[in-house]
Amino acid sequence: MSSAWLLPEHIADVLPSQARRIEELRRELLDMARTYGCELVMPPLLEHLESLLSGTGRELDLKTFKLVDQLSGRSLGLRADTTPQVARIDAHLLNRAGVTRLCYCGPVVHTRPDGLHATREPLQFGVEIYGHAGLEADLEVQELAIDALQRAGLREVTLDLGDARLVRGVLGDVKLSADLLDAVVTALASKDAAALKALSSDLPAPVAAGLQTLLSLYGGVEVLAQARAQLPAHPLISAALDDLEWLSSHVRQTHPELHLGFDLSDLTGYAYYSGMRFALYVPGCSHAVLRGGRYDEVGAVFGRRRPAVGFSLDLKTLVGLCPETALSAAVRAPWGEDAGLRAAIRRLRAEGATVVCVLPGHEHENDEFDCDRELVSVDGQWVVRAL
Amino acid sequence: MSSAWLLPEHIADVLPSQARRIEELRRELLDMARTYGCELVMPPLLEHLESLLSGTGRELDLKTFKLVDQLSGRSLGLRADTTPQVARIDAHLLNRAGVTRLCYCGPVVHTRPDGLHATREPLQFGVEIYGHAGLEADLEVQELAIDALQRAGLREVTLDLGDARLVRGVLGDVKLSADLLDAVVTALASKDAAALKALSSDLPAPVAAGLQTLLSLYGGVEVLAQARAQLPAHPLISAALDDLEWLSSHVRQTHPELHLGFDLSDLTGYAYYSGMRFALYVPGCSHAVLRGGRYDEVGAVFGRRRPAVGFSLDLKTLVGLCPETALSAAVRAPWGEDAGLRAAIRRLRAEGATVVCVLPGHEHENDEFDCDRELVSVDGQWVVRAL
Repeated sequence: MSSAWLLPEHIADVLPSQARRIEELRRELLDMARTYGCELVMPPLLEHLESLLSGTGRELDLKTFKLVDQLSGRSLGLRADTTPQVARIDAHLLNRAGVTRLCYCGPVVHTRPDGLHATREPLQFGVEIYGHAGLEADLEVQELAIDALQRAGLREVTLDLGDARLVRGVLGDVKLSADLLDAVVTALASKDAAALKALSSDLPAPVAAGLQTLLSLYGGVEVLAQARAQLPAHPLISAALDDLEWLSSHVRQTHPELHLGFDLSDLTGYAYYSGMRFALYVPGCSHAVLRGGRYDEVGAVFGRRRPAVGFSLDLKTLVGLCPETALSAAVRAPWGEDAGLRAAIRRLRAEGATVVCVLPGHEHENDEFDCDRELVSVDGQWVVRAL
Repeated sequence: MSSAWLLPEHIADVLPSQARRIEELRRELLDMARTYGCELVMPPLLEHLESLLSGTGRELDLKTFKLVDQLSGRSLGLRADTTPQVARIDAHLLNRAGVTRLCYCGPVVHTRPDGLHATREPLQFGVEIYGHAGLEADLEVQELAIDALQRAGLREVTLDLGDARLVRGVLGDVKLSADLLDAVVTALASKDAAALKALSSDLPAPVAAGLQTLLSLYGGVEVLAQARAQLPAHPLISAALDDLEWLSSHVRQTHPELHLGFDLSDLTGYAYYSGMRFALYVPGCSHAVLRGGRYDEVGAVFGRRRPAVGFSLDLKTLVGLCPETALSAAVRAPWGEDAGLRAAIRRLRAEGATVVCVLPGHEHENDEFDCDRELVSVDGQWVVRAL
């Protein structure tokens, strides 16, 4: 039985000090989303597989644990991403005509970790705005995302912008098989020029050249002008570049302190983005801590093709990057049957203080809580005094 | 595809109004547990099956979804109960000598619903105190449980007390097979005298009579005297009755408004209770909304036989029984590029107000939020006025 308490790889308990910080951050982020008018939803952990995975691509399928429902014999999936579920709620359950802002916070589970040190059970927080196709919604989501990281105490945030329409514009009328498209997207995302060249060998020369050009288009705001000069003329490309210009200039107004970058070949999550996509980076973490963008097609499988834009992040990753916050200290109290003592303890707790009762026989143990005060009887009155 | 968005039976989305109330209740309960000195832990959703199910009995096994870990080929369980996980954390990870108070709040998943209207995905909140064998810990846990329901706005709470040692005392030296014990416990829990009689046919007459006596021992505090008179003499029985008397008199002092009942044959959760067990009932719900008790053996499989007492409840059930609370109203604001407008919106949000921006073209939609104020420009200043 020596391994009974060994957890599966990339699965971990969250112990008290970390759990408290995650809980505090969770509240901060949900409260902040609420100030933007986002309503909280809680989709279930389990759904029928076809509902969970329709139109979401092969990557999510591979990441999703499958199980059998004993009640129906049907296949269920343990959610690996909350976004398709929230799209289903918008499309089918709420079924509103107007703008709908939703947020969520809950665990997702992955069959395979995203990286060497990644958890297979992220705690996903996210925001979605449905029903508005204009850039104002993109901007609102970006500002909310930046505010979220700032609220978490992160400084030196870099906003990295791109657009899924660029590669579609470069491909133009050329239709790739799903496998080839997957491979091209992977090569672009990993900036693998050699692989991209090999994959492009059967493509028309201008398309192959356009793909190689995309690879080099990353850096500061000058990238937009380079893209206009070097990428082929295509309505999707010019629309994408116009939008990126508008968004970057507007987000800079409210967040002048932000580092702004462009990476026009970053296609992470390409399977569902349909337009602008963005990522936020902070020092000390080589991966994006937050990813988002526009995915207008996400609700289509549920019968409603609504404009949609949003982002998500993993709170477990985020909390590891945040500065430590001081935990509030506690009051130590003796255990006793004295009515005055018990009333004093209840009063302190009702006021929000943490009161740790020392149970009989445990007087000489170390406090697990950081007690800086104690409840003592002075002249028949129970009073709190410093330790 | 018409069924793509139909969820599995006994699985449901939690929509905004309900989700907000669950989130508020979650915070209330976690904060209250903290005032008692409980530290928050977050065990994972998935564990190796033998870690999740060791020593927990057949019922939990049947309720647990099983899946295969692609990384190791081993069997994993999706947790159906958090208590064994928290016992593992106490025994193995924290490994403290003294009193440890822990709390948790997260989803659990059941293969089968507990009842006709039960969810298969409860949101479990619970508290555990480890390391103290005395009744003071039992009392603290009961008071915390009662406070939790009162904090949730529930009145007319009934505390129902029992003790797992009573049936052990009645059985005395008679050893039952696991299957027979299961059947006896089920018959006792469902007050099925006929079934109990049939199951007892091969037992010594005093044991069979004792089991039948247990069935009739429910009601007010007079039940304790009846039990002393009618149950056989056994140290486990007298210890259990002494403890119930002490606990009930103490809990009555702090909660005089409580309805107090005894049900000495209620053995729900018998598989892991080792002593006192309790349940809380409220009007409008035929099932207990909260169950708890002492289960000193729960950590044994992890190598540490620590005294343990605790309780758990389902927040989704609880919120359905709570009085509605008013949601705070929001401020409606126009969308615009005006720097003063954008600054005013950011200021209001930083103060905690919900500001819903009306995105261009959506001016004539109904507000999803209950907006009772609006942000308007008066003489060049952005001010909030009532709607």
